[in-house]
Amino acid sequence: MRFIVPILCFLMAAASASAQPSDPVVLVVHGGAGTISRDRVTPERETAIRSALEEALRAGYAAIEEGNPALDGVVDAIEVLEDDPHFNAGIGGVFAADGTVRHDASIMDGATGQAGASTGTMHIRHPIQLARAVMEHSVHVMLNEEGAEEFAIQQGLEIVPNSFFHTEHRRRALEAAQERERELQGDAGYVPEEWQMIGTVGAVALDNEGHLAAGTSTGGMTNKRWGRIGDSPIIGAGTFVNDATCGVSSTGHGEYFIRLAIAHDIHARAMYGGETCTEAAEAVIHETLTEAGGTGGVIMLDRHGNVAMPFNTKGMYRGYITRSGQVTVKLYADE
Amino acid sequence: MRFIVPILCFLMAAASASAQPSDPVVLVVHGGAGTISRDRVTPERETAIRSALEEALRAGYAAIEEGNPALDGVVDAIEVLEDDPHFNAGIGGVFAADGTVRHDASIMDGATGQAGASTGTMHIRHPIQLARAVMEHSVHVMLNEEGAEEFAIQQGLEIVPNSFFHTEHRRRALEAAQERERELQGDAGYVPEEWQMIGTVGAVALDNEGHLAAGTSTGGMTNKRWGRIGDSPIIGAGTFVNDATCGVSSTGHGEYFIRLAIAHDIHARAMYGGETCTEAAEAVIHETLTEAGGTGGVIMLDRHGNVAMPFNTKGMYRGYITRSGQVTVKLYADE
Repeated sequence: MRFIVPILCFLMAAASASAQPSDPVVLVVHGGAGTISRDRVTPERETAIRSALEEALRAGYAAIEEGNPALDGVVDAIEVLEDDPHFNAGIGGVFAADGTVRHDASIMDGATGQAGASTGTMHIRHPIQLARAVMEHSVHVMLNEEGAEEFAIQQGLEIVPNSFFHTEHRRRALEAAQERERELQGDAGYVPEEWQMIGTVGAVALDNEGHLAAGTSTGGMTNKRWGRIGDSPIIGAGTFVNDATCGVSSTGHGEYFIRLAIAHDIHARAMYGGETCTEAAEAVIHETLTEAGGTGGVIMLDRHGNVAMPFNTKGMYRGYITRSGQVTVKLYADE
Repeated sequence: MRFIVPILCFLMAAASASAQPSDPVVLVVHGGAGTISRDRVTPERETAIRSALEEALRAGYAAIEEGNPALDGVVDAIEVLEDDPHFNAGIGGVFAADGTVRHDASIMDGATGQAGASTGTMHIRHPIQLARAVMEHSVHVMLNEEGAEEFAIQQGLEIVPNSFFHTEHRRRALEAAQERERELQGDAGYVPEEWQMIGTVGAVALDNEGHLAAGTSTGGMTNKRWGRIGDSPIIGAGTFVNDATCGVSSTGHGEYFIRLAIAHDIHARAMYGGETCTEAAEAVIHETLTEAGGTGGVIMLDRHGNVAMPFNTKGMYRGYITRSGQVTVKLYADE
C-alpha cells in the first residue's frame, strides 16, 4: 500500500494534467481582493487600476521576453504595483494602528525552492526587492522589522522615510477604522472588516526555461496592531511555488490563509491528490477557504502556462499576459 | 477525472490507515534535534534531559487524563520544557547576536483549525501561553515583538526581565559562534552550524474526545541577527494539526522547514496522497528534507494514537506517553 498509492496517484495526476495551451500565460498579477463592485469604484479609479495592472504585466513581460528568470518578471511587475498608490503595498500601503505604514513581502523561486521574506519594514522603497535580497544574500528565509532594515541598508537597497508611503485616502481609512472600533468599544474582540484588507499585490511568472516564481507584497491590514503579521510574508500561506506543480500568490483575510496554508495546499493537492493546479486552486478557494468562513483569492500559474484566478469576494484586481503579449485585465466577479 | 482521483485516493487512504493501537499514544514531546550523541552528552546531562522529558510528558498527561482538551496537554508539557535550562526555549533560550534572548512560539487546535503564534518576544515567561492567548483572545494568528508583548501584558501573562532567561552555557555558545564568525570573516554568508540550532521544544496531544493539538516553542538560532524568524512560529512549517489527519511539531534548521512547509506537507501527503501519517512523516524527513540538504526532525501523532518521531540528525530529544501511562524517552538515533 505504501508504494502503490503514490504511484497510482502520480499516474492519475499525469493523466489529468492540463496540456500546454497554444498561447501560454507567462505572467499573472493581482492587486487585492475584496468588496470591489461597480457601485464602489469610480470610473477614474477603475481606469487607473486597469492601466496599472497592464503596466505591471508589461514590465514583468519585458523581463521574461528578454530571457531573464521568472524571479525578474515577478519583481519587475510587483515594483510597478508597489509604486502605485491605488494598491495596498509600497506607496499607498495602509496605516497600522500607530499611524505608521509597515510592509510585509515574500518571494520564492520554483526552480530551487529558495525563498525570502521580510515583515514590518517602514523604510524600504521596494519591499519585494528586500524579500529577494533575503533569499539571495542571507542564509535566512525571514527577517523582521529593524533587523530586516539593517540588512536592507547593508544590501544597498533604496531607503525612504515612512512618510514617502503615506497617502490621504489610507489615512482616512485608518480614521474610519478607529472610529468604528471606538463605536464597538472593541479591542482584542474587534473583527476587521473586509474593506480593511483590500489591495495586497502579487505576481507569478513562468520564464522561457520553464521555471516558475511567485511573490507577494502588502501593507497588511488597516489599523493592525500588536505587530500583527498576515499571510503575505509567510511561505506556504501568501506565497508558494514549485516547478513540479505551480506558483501561487494570495490576497484576502490573512489569518485564514495562514491557518489553511492556502498556497502550499494548492501545490499539495496537485502534487499528491492528482488534481490539476487549476482544479486545486478553485477547490481551495471555493471549498476549503469558503467553508472555513474566510474571504479572498489567489492567482495561480502552472508550469504549462495555465492560469487560474479564483476568489470568493465581490471582485479581485487581476490580470495576465500570454507568451504572444496578449493582456487580459479584470476587476469584478462578472468579468 | 476531477472527482475520480480524490475519491480513489480517499478510499486507498482509508484502506491503508493504521488501526487504533491497543494502548494509543496521547502525548508526544521533543526537546530538539541535532548533534546529540553519546560522546557529546555527559551522564549528568543525559539524566537531567531524560527526567525533564518525562516530567513534561507526565504534566501534559495529567491534563488530558482529567478530561481537558488536547491544547491543555500541549501547553502544560511545553511549559515544563520552557522552564528547564537544558532546552532552547524559555529559560535557557539561546542568545541572539545582540545579546538578548528572543522567543518564538506557535500553537494550533486540530478540532477548530484555530492557531496562534508570537515572534521575537523578550519578556514573556511562557511563550507557549502567549501563542495560545493570541489564538483564543485576538482576531489574529501571529503577533510580533513589542506588539506581541503589549498584547501579553493586556492578557495578564507573566512578565519577566530578559535576564530571567539567560544561562551561562548559552552565553558561551554565543561567544563561540561570534568567534567562529570572525574567523570566517563572514556576515551575510555565514552559515550557522548544526549545534546552533539544537533545543527547540514541542508537543502534540490527543485528548479523550479524539481531538489533536500541537505546539512549538524556541529561542531560535544562536547568534541570530536581522530579526531572523525560523520555522517555530510559522503555522505549516513548525506546527500544524488537523483532526482529519495528525498533528506535527518540528525542530531543526528552520529555513528548510519553512521552504518545504514541512508540517503541512505531512498533513497533505496523508490527506491527499493516501499515505498514513507515519509514512508521510518518515518520507518528509528522510526523503524531502534530506534530499534538500536540511537537518532536523518532527514529532507526529495521528488521530488514532499512532506516533512517529523521525529525524536525520545524530539524535533528537523525544518521548511519548500512552493512554495507560507508559512513558518512553529517547535521545539517540540507535535507541
